[in-house]
Formats: sequence, C-alpha cells, structure tokens
Amino acid sequence: MDREHLIIEKYFKPLAQNQESLGLKNDAAFFKKSKCVISTDMMIEDIHFKKTSDPKFIAKKLLRINLSDIAAMGALPFGFFLNIAIPKNNTEKWLRDFSSGLKSDMKKFNLKLFGGDTSSANKIFLSVTILGKTRSQNLCHLKNKAKNKSSIYVSGTIGDAALGCLLFKNYSFLNCSKGNKDKLIKKFNLPEPRLSTSQYLLGKAEFCTDISDGLLRELNQVASYSKKCANIFLEKIPMSNAVKEIYKKNKNIDFWEILLSGGEDYELLFAISDEKRINISERNDFTKIGYFSNGTGLRIIDRNGNHFYPNKIGFSHF
Amino acid sequence: MDREHLIIEKYFKPLAQNQESLGLKNDAAFFKKSKCVISTDMMIEDIHFKKTSDPKFIAKKLLRINLSDIAAMGALPFGFFLNIAIPKNNTEKWLRDFSSGLKSDMKKFNLKLFGGDTSSANKIFLSVTILGKTRSQNLCHLKNKAKNKSSIYVSGTIGDAALGCLLFKNYSFLNCSKGNKDKLIKKFNLPEPRLSTSQYLLGKAEFCTDISDGLLRELNQVASYSKKCANIFLEKIPMSNAVKEIYKKNKNIDFWEILLSGGEDYELLFAISDEKRINISERNDFTKIGYFSNGTGLRIIDRNGNHFYPNKIGFSHF
Repeated sequence: MDREHLIIEKYFKPLAQNQESLGLKNDAAFFKKSKCVISTDMMIEDIHFKKTSDPKFIAKKLLRINLSDIAAMGALPFGFFLNIAIPKNNTEKWLRDFSSGLKSDMKKFNLKLFGGDTSSANKIFLSVTILGKTRSQNLCHLKNKAKNKSSIYVSGTIGDAALGCLLFKNYSFLNCSKGNKDKLIKKFNLPEPRLSTSQYLLGKAEFCTDISDGLLRELNQVASYSKKCANIFLEKIPMSNAVKEIYKKNKNIDFWEILLSGGEDYELLFAISDEKRINISERNDFTKIGYFSNGTGLRIIDRNGNHFYPNKIGFSHF
Repeated sequence: MDREHLIIEKYFKPLAQNQESLGLKNDAAFFKKSKCVISTDMMIEDIHFKKTSDPKFIAKKLLRINLSDIAAMGALPFGFFLNIAIPKNNTEKWLRDFSSGLKSDMKKFNLKLFGGDTSSANKIFLSVTILGKTRSQNLCHLKNKAKNKSSIYVSGTIGDAALGCLLFKNYSFLNCSKGNKDKLIKKFNLPEPRLSTSQYLLGKAEFCTDISDGLLRELNQVASYSKKCANIFLEKIPMSNAVKEIYKKNKNIDFWEILLSGGEDYELLFAISDEKRINISERNDFTKIGYFSNGTGLRIIDRNGNHFYPNKIGFSHF
C-alpha cells in the first residue's frame, strides 16, 4: 500500500465509519435513499498543472476528472460546486478563459453550477464537488466485487495521458512525431469521462473504476478489496498508434512502467464474468487484458510468459 | 459592490442560472425536493491561517465556518466531504493533530465524513463541502426577504473575531489585558456556529445570514437583495467586555471600522417584523441594532445622531 493510501487508512477511514462513505474505497460516496452519488477532486498549480497552462483546459479537466468519478460509479452527473483560489493579479483574463471553459463543458455534460467559494491565494487552487444520480437504489458500480475467473477489461487505450504528461512537460528525450505528440498531450489535458460506457456496463460488470492513478494501482486496489489475484498480460494492453510509435522509437525509457503506473487516462477498468462475456462482444472499445484468480496481489506476464515486476505501481502524492 | 462580488456576478452567476443555486446570493444551495442544503468553503495557508497554526484548531474552524453556512440557512448539518492538500514533509504529526480536531468536532456536531481527496502541495490548502437538511421544503432562511420597518438584529457580540485576528497576528500596538486577549483570539480561532439559534428563528426571521465577511458587508448585501435601506446605530452594536476594554484603551485605531467591517464572527444577522418581535423578547443573546426603511444602501448613525461613513464595508479577497 502506498503512502497516500496509508494516510487515508490511518487518519480518515476511522472517521468515515458510515454507510454512505463506502469505507472510502470507491470513487464517490453513495446516498442510497436519494440515489445520489457525490465526489470531490482538487487541482493545484505545480502539482496538477502549470501556472502557464490554458485556464480553459484547466476548467474542463477539473470538471472531467470529477465526472470520471461519477462515471466510475455508474451514475449520471447533474451539477457541481466550485472552489477557486487564484492570485490577485491578472484575475480578469484568467477568469474569463476559465469560465468560458467551464461554460462549454457544462453545456457538453449538461451540468448545473450550484455554488462555491472564492479566495485569493499565491498559487492557484481549485476543487469541485460533483453530484450525480444512479438509475436505481441498487444499481451502481462498486470496487469490491471481483470474482474468481472473471475477465479483466479496460475501455479505450492505456498510457496516452501518462506519455502526454511527459511530452507536455517538454521531456525532450522522447522521440515522437508532431501529430502524435499533440494527440497524447490532448489526452492528458482533456480526458473523456466514460459516462455512457459506464451506463452500458450497469448490471454487466462485477466492478468498475476509473483509471486515475495508474492501471496497476487501481487493479491492485480492486484485487485487495476483493481478496483475489489480478493476472494481466503486457501484450494485451491496448495501445493507441501514438503510444505504439513511442514504444518503437524509444528503447531507452521504462516504457511499461510509464504505461502501467502513469495515471490520468480516465478510462474504465472493470471485470465481467464468463456468463456475461458474450454480451460485450459488440464493443470494440473494450479489451480483455487478464483475469482474476484465487490468491492476492498482481501477476503481470510479459510476451515470453515471464513475470514482470514494476518498480512502482502507481501515482501517490506522498 | 466589492471586487470579490463583482467577480462572482460577472463570471459565475451567469453559469448558475438554476433554482438550486438561489442565484449564488445565499449561504448555501438548496435542493428543495430532498430538503438538502449544501455549501462549500476553503481555508488556505497564509490567507486564512499561518503555517504554524495548531492543526487541531484549523480542522475545527474549517468545519465550523462550513457549519455556520448551514446554520445561516436554518438547516441542520449531517456530514461533509474533505479536500486536503499538504506539504510532503512532517505530514504525520500535522495529520494526527488535524484528524484529532476533526474527530472531536465531528462528535460535537454529530457529523459524518463521506469522502474527499488528498494531494501534496507547497502550501496547505483545505476545503469542506457540507451537507445539511431543512425541516421542511418551505422552511429555510433566505437573504432577499427584508421588509420596510422590520427590526435588524444580531446574535451574540460583534468584533471579537476581528480584534482576535489582529491580536493573533501579534499586532503589538493593541493594548489589552492577557485574559481578554485570550478570549478574543479564541473567538477568532474557534467560532461557534449558531445552529440552534437559527432553528429558533425559523418562521420568525424575515431573513437570516451569518456574519462571515463583516457586519456591514452582509447587511449591505441583504439591503441590496431586498431593495431596502438598512439603518443601524453604532451605540447599539453589542460588545463583549473584551471588545469594550480595547475600545477604551486604544483611541489610536479605527475601532468602528474594525468592528463593523472585520469578519469571522459567525454570529447571525437577521430581521424580525414588528408583529413577531414580541416572540423574541425572551432571548438575551439577541440585540436590535437598527431597522429597514424604504430606500437603498446603508445608513450608519453614531451616538450624536451623525452619519458615520466607513472607508470599507467588509472583507474582500480581491
């Protein structure tokens, strides 16, 4: 367990002994009676973005990382609260761009702004608390439901955002064509919350979560909550053409480490049992990357059938 | 209108055209059907507290300023979400103290922790989103209901926190006994959300709000929303013995300015019409400080019957 999870386990889980918090194990709290799902996420200057980042993209990403939590739960979003702390100088231009990004994504995702708080601060600090609804009191995704022999899937492709993040930070050692570089950076700056995919998976997936802190970290969590072993195959990990280009052209980087542990893809990670598997053959945006077995932890297998041991399994703030 | 309100009016109000937001004019959003009241507030290092401030008090104040918004609406709180960003070093001691403050006030106010987000950051950033319930769908306090001739009241005493804040920051020019200094600093560090007072006022007060950004700023807002003139008398402003001592011993400071414009008292400001006034004679923690008349803006009258014109009317972050 990484230090961020240890901190949550030690200091906050003991304070969250209530049904709605779901033991702080899931992507949002669930208020069953009202079918309401609520989550909150921060974005902070120098941690999640740069001072020079386009405020329009910051606003959109702030909404989308929160929307992704609603998607992970199988709910549909309806509105949010916004906290915004920014430096006193140059507020007008920054706020104009930020609010225009907010407005555009509020329209795209049909969201209402309910309230918030404003403050000055030396560095930009933002947080959103997002509200969503599930279709019924008993239909939402949870993380502790993986079963023996069920298949592990991801939506979309993996690693685009992690490599986009490196390219965005101008890591010049990465060899990549201009077109693909732009695609990867866009995936990092403007993730797509998988809201309709997650709705499709209701009643089909055993569990579902969004990949915010890296595939291995999320998978390790589900395996631990479900008391199962997650087995995945490197050659099955779905890669975009841009990611494949980087794989071919850059033999000097810890490619698999970045792919599996880098976060921010905001794709869905889920499991489906054998009986239900036929239902999803129609989806070409789903890839089976492995399966659950009795046991604990992660087993990562490379193309030669050997075990792969990553140095770290995901992003931790501490 | 100060710059903070102008920013909200210009950039965020146009995005909050929904019933629940109440036009961003009140202390919280109101979800009528579910009787749910939700608000969010931040606390940031160097803006709201110092790096060296006791984390136990920071945790309690963070909850209490949020609870005060629930009180202002006439609701009762039931739980919250917490965002916490702190530096990587010395996290354990800080978190131990912070979570113990949280735990103690969660018990005192009967609150559940539902979820949140953690991050590292160079400076401490905290936000809470708090949830409360009203007794019925039509029983909560709003700010736009002041009527002609109704009386303006405050709970408790005014200015303690503003002077406590100055003393806390070690403004050595303030002459004050040790005992009173401690009392004022405590009022600044540990405000008391007026939850039961606000319940008592349901069905009695025409409007109710908490005094977070200074008496005059809150009063000016209500006067503006209600399209009335708020008349108040300096000699009626209720003062604690500690505030009276500072008034007597410090003739060199803008005493009234600090008292009327300094924020963070978190007392309630409300109005009661003549017919209902008899009901509240039993309360010795309420003081009538003025009345509403037809017109606009603020009229502040000193003990000689002259108009008092403050340089500023409250705290603005921008």
